[in-house]
Amino acid sequence: MTKQDTRVLGSHKGYLSGSRPDLRVPVRRVHLTDGRDVTLYDTSGPYTDPEVTTDVRRGLPPLRAPWLAERAARRRSGDGLTQLAYARRGEITEEMEYVALREDRSPEFVRAEIAAGRAVLPANVRHPEAEPMIIGKNFLVKVNANIGNSAVTSSIEEEVEKMRWATRWGADTIMDLSTGKDIHTTREWVLRNSPVPVGTVPLYQALEKVGGRAEELSWEVFRDTVIEQAEQGVDYMTVHAGVLLRYVPLTAGRTTGIVSRGGSIMAAWCLAHHEESFLYTHFEELCTILREYDITFSLGDGLRPGSIADANDEAQFAELRTLGELNRIAKAHDVQTMIEGPGHVPMHKIKENVDLQQEICEEAPFYTLGPLTTDIAPGYDHITSAIGAAMIGWWGTAMLCYVTPKEHLGLPDRDDVKTGVITYRIAAHAADLAKGHPGAQRWDDALSEARFDFRWEDQFNLSLDPDTARAFHDETLPAEPAKTAHFCSMCGPKFCSMRISRDIRERMAEKSAEFAAGGNRVYLPVTD
Amino acid sequence: MTKQDTRVLGSHKGYLSGSRPDLRVPVRRVHLTDGRDVTLYDTSGPYTDPEVTTDVRRGLPPLRAPWLAERAARRRSGDGLTQLAYARRGEITEEMEYVALREDRSPEFVRAEIAAGRAVLPANVRHPEAEPMIIGKNFLVKVNANIGNSAVTSSIEEEVEKMRWATRWGADTIMDLSTGKDIHTTREWVLRNSPVPVGTVPLYQALEKVGGRAEELSWEVFRDTVIEQAEQGVDYMTVHAGVLLRYVPLTAGRTTGIVSRGGSIMAAWCLAHHEESFLYTHFEELCTILREYDITFSLGDGLRPGSIADANDEAQFAELRTLGELNRIAKAHDVQTMIEGPGHVPMHKIKENVDLQQEICEEAPFYTLGPLTTDIAPGYDHITSAIGAAMIGWWGTAMLCYVTPKEHLGLPDRDDVKTGVITYRIAAHAADLAKGHPGAQRWDDALSEARFDFRWEDQFNLSLDPDTARAFHDETLPAEPAKTAHFCSMCGPKFCSMRISRDIRERMAEKSAEFAAGGNRVYLPVTD
Repeated sequence: MTKQDTRVLGSHKGYLSGSRPDLRVPVRRVHLTDGRDVTLYDTSGPYTDPEVTTDVRRGLPPLRAPWLAERAARRRSGDGLTQLAYARRGEITEEMEYVALREDRSPEFVRAEIAAGRAVLPANVRHPEAEPMIIGKNFLVKVNANIGNSAVTSSIEEEVEKMRWATRWGADTIMDLSTGKDIHTTREWVLRNSPVPVGTVPLYQALEKVGGRAEELSWEVFRDTVIEQAEQGVDYMTVHAGVLLRYVPLTAGRTTGIVSRGGSIMAAWCLAHHEESFLYTHFEELCTILREYDITFSLGDGLRPGSIADANDEAQFAELRTLGELNRIAKAHDVQTMIEGPGHVPMHKIKENVDLQQEICEEAPFYTLGPLTTDIAPGYDHITSAIGAAMIGWWGTAMLCYVTPKEHLGLPDRDDVKTGVITYRIAAHAADLAKGHPGAQRWDDALSEARFDFRWEDQFNLSLDPDTARAFHDETLPAEPAKTAHFCSMCGPKFCSMRISRDIRERMAEKSAEFAAGGNRVYLPVTD
Repeated sequence: MTKQDTRVLGSHKGYLSGSRPDLRVPVRRVHLTDGRDVTLYDTSGPYTDPEVTTDVRRGLPPLRAPWLAERAARRRSGDGLTQLAYARRGEITEEMEYVALREDRSPEFVRAEIAAGRAVLPANVRHPEAEPMIIGKNFLVKVNANIGNSAVTSSIEEEVEKMRWATRWGADTIMDLSTGKDIHTTREWVLRNSPVPVGTVPLYQALEKVGGRAEELSWEVFRDTVIEQAEQGVDYMTVHAGVLLRYVPLTAGRTTGIVSRGGSIMAAWCLAHHEESFLYTHFEELCTILREYDITFSLGDGLRPGSIADANDEAQFAELRTLGELNRIAKAHDVQTMIEGPGHVPMHKIKENVDLQQEICEEAPFYTLGPLTTDIAPGYDHITSAIGAAMIGWWGTAMLCYVTPKEHLGLPDRDDVKTGVITYRIAAHAADLAKGHPGAQRWDDALSEARFDFRWEDQFNLSLDPDTARAFHDETLPAEPAKTAHFCSMCGPKFCSMRISRDIRERMAEKSAEFAAGGNRVYLPVTD
């Protein structure tokens, strides 16, 4: 599969070199027909490197193993070993240097952002195969893709392939949300083969263990599940510890109640036991477990709105305040933390979400699902939500959880995963541009220059999805000469504005030469 | 085709009654399984009314003919007959009453908005078949779909069918941008069969008449083309009269030069003749022609940016200032006017576009193409642009010109037209919600209530695209019982948050009853 991949992407795998030979950061290099290279961020892992032979049964090479071993040897008893702990004591880890190269920032900038809690670097010490990446508002906006079988569908191989497919198109992290049988084995395969950090919602597996009866859940069952997944190497975990008993009645008047699976399970538990959730009462104990593996908290918004009608309501913001409190506790334990966000929110209520979250959670990275900006388009919720995702990314969200066209209707297949990832890469990049992220616009400029120069192959190869761009062009003008033609099928040769525009430029150059002798009177730009 | 259409839409055609029997405003009524009706705006024309037999060779019934005849009989020589002229002298036309019913506003509100130039009602007196609609920031955001053959592809029948297809999915206006042969005949067929206003760019046909040589264009050729199209019934015309000679050099340093076809043609003309464009120098004469037919100006932004790099530059805003000047001249002639806008604009530069346009053009309706918020995703530019379209709609743009997945790559086929229209309906509705347009949220609420109640059929029928929503659901759970199941394929029965949430609601009701006796101490909402 590697050969085919590199061909299809119209580019080649490259590496940036760090301070030691085993610190090599993958990039995608697009070779333009004019001889230049454009270097792009690359999430696709060793699968797109023709020099590397991969074997799904053996897993990816454990690139972080030497770094972890060296740090373990140096470590004194009682030292924290999270990236946050290192950052706080001024130490730059190999992972920090790695993401610094990846994001074209200084290692010290990366360290400072992690130390301040404004960024997380999710990297379980038991997941040495993953390539380090960073999530924070002062870095590139990231995209998560959910995979996972349900009771109804999917095989293990399908899930691994979905993971590989999602990262090939640009997913920065994967969440394995499996709820069916073989949940442990599926996760093992995904982890051993994933080039990106993997997140889970341990509650789903815990619920399986008690036969799906929420009221039979307990701290012990949950804790054991967390340890089981921690040992496997899960990099970040969604924990719905903010669903408090007293918030549940706040959802009673809602149009769509509680739509988060984890949130509804915990709300049911709270009501059944009529006491505060074990996730909340045992939160400090949970912190000590996550700290031991350097697992990052993703504090779940179990009461997120599931409809436009419920956006920004009291239930949602009450939970957010509790997440702020838990964020402080986690940080006190040196545990990296991000905060999950909605959901369904109309455009004019989006900014309040980021602003409040940033204030209440001391700028901890925000990780939102969309938000969907209208409820009326099932089948197109990748689009209803990409609108909200781009905006919330611009305003400070660090990672966007993708939504596929199947949202609300069914489980995504291979095509849906690709559509979801590409759509969210668009939203993330639009946000990077709007935030003025250094270098983000270079990509747009390279593509637009190719377009103006009628360099069709360059335009395809620079596209987020070269295959689709090429296929759409070929549908109308399939002949090979059309790929060098100075017009396209839309207007035909006579009406091509790009061609006319180039003629104008040439004519202006001639005229300029003429008028230079005559005093340059006419072509001076007007500044009225 | 009508029978199939009504079935597929899962709804029925209805009419709102006006002050006279021939004033009937079409609506789509979705019948919910609980007995209620949801009434939606309907652009699909008589084609979706099973009571009406249509014949493409005879055209649609001329619904406005009696109104026009009555007004012509009353009219004194020298009276203006544009909607703007009537509005200014305090007269409410049948068309104004029609759109008032359609938008759930008072006729007086409609009249006042038109009189102020904040809204236009494009309705050529020679196009009596079209159903009146209004474009203005205080009304529902509208969507335009471009159709039109090029030298390379398409037949007349295909274009008519594309028009019908686009309006069926929600296009509020159509622009016929044909540039190939049979340009006059194609337009005739489209006009006679279109239930929505039709716009054109007369310059394209004028250029055909001079063999495609821009420098051979003249005022006379252009004027004759405008009159030819005016007689046929074109409702609004894009005129690139703001491309002045002195602005052309401002585009010389751009990344993508001039990307508007009309703009590049006029720039080439200006340079060839080294004088101001005939569109600009004969603008008042043009006003007298458009006034005679009540054709609405769509003042084209010939210098709009074609890339992120060129957004909001001096060329673009210099032209906008000229459009402001032309807007005042058109208004002085009682000619309705809207202003076209970009293009390619990163999110953080979008708002400046609307704010400037509204200021310079005295709140004349803004009509924008997207804007695309990044250049890197050819093949997905319906999405890159829907992000910008939703935002610019929220901030005051009155009509959004759709972009299809084929933008920059080829001509849209039937599927692309549908995808483009649905995507832009999403953007427009998201904007309506964000603007707090009265009633907009009712649609979202109805759908979300259906979702929470597991009324799958209602959910499908309320969708922007019922076919796709139903098909996606059936892919995973095809059996008929699944349509009444209280769970779906995503989580399966055990994990369904909606089901758990309903259980919680019931349990809370029970608990409330219990605690009522005990003093209501626990379930009081917390307001910390």
